[in-house]
Amino acid sequence: MASELPATTPEPPPLAGVLETVLYYTAPLEARVDRFYRNVLGMRPIGRKPGQFLFFRAGRSVFLLFETDRAREQESPPPHGSRGPGHTCFQVPTHSYGAWKAHLTAHEVPVEGETEWPGGGRSFYFRDPAGNALEIADRDIWPD
Amino acid sequence: MASELPATTPEPPPLAGVLETVLYYTAPLEARVDRFYRNVLGMRPIGRKPGQFLFFRAGRSVFLLFETDRAREQESPPPHGSRGPGHTCFQVPTHSYGAWKAHLTAHEVPVEGETEWPGGGRSFYFRDPAGNALEIADRDIWPD
Repeated sequence: MASELPATTPEPPPLAGVLETVLYYTAPLEARVDRFYRNVLGMRPIGRKPGQFLFFRAGRSVFLLFETDRAREQESPPPHGSRGPGHTCFQVPTHSYGAWKAHLTAHEVPVEGETEWPGGGRSFYFRDPAGNALEIADRDIWPD
Repeated sequence: MASELPATTPEPPPLAGVLETVLYYTAPLEARVDRFYRNVLGMRPIGRKPGQFLFFRAGRSVFLLFETDRAREQESPPPHGSRGPGHTCFQVPTHSYGAWKAHLTAHEVPVEGETEWPGGGRSFYFRDPAGNALEIADRDIWPD
């Protein structure tokens, strides 16, 4: 198309950012995982196929959970699927950081640790029912 | 703090979005993985500890790669670490989608498939040297 950049470039064009962040679960945990992200983290469901995947909107981001074994069996899109605890960090408005900790504690989700970052900001760690290590940060803790 | 929300809320406060997206690699592949994300995908390095992690900025997002076994051994932050191919999708400016396909082909990265999405937009799939399934989408293919 005339509007596109030249066909080959020595430098890659810029990436806008990450569109989809993915974690995994195993089938027996699906109902608990679904309830956790929907009711405890308050994510908005945008897709679901039982035994296969749970898709959510998390603010400006898309957050996808796949059942590992099914994702490994698929042919298209290309197969993927990790086992063992993954990790991701969610950002919350700075003023709601304390409320998030209290909210998780009220849902009996243990806080596993908390960090004050040298460049400013803080974050705390907890787990989803699949064992994934989650983090909530009170700002972009990766300043330029 | 006076500026914070009430200590417990039945509804969780809103999430702003995903701050950190994580994939994994194993130690023998570290140099190839580093070169791939730096030189082929053009991400800006923001942290590196040999044998342990490779951190990048990808546009508005933070993209972290951890060596699985080391991440599983750490005590703080809490341990994590998945084995097997993870998945993530990067968004690129719509006008650069064709240039991205050409760029990857010029670097001999095979395109494993391509999808036209019912709601508009398209994306294609490829792998990093650790076997993670990556995707590049020409827009937010998850419209509200």
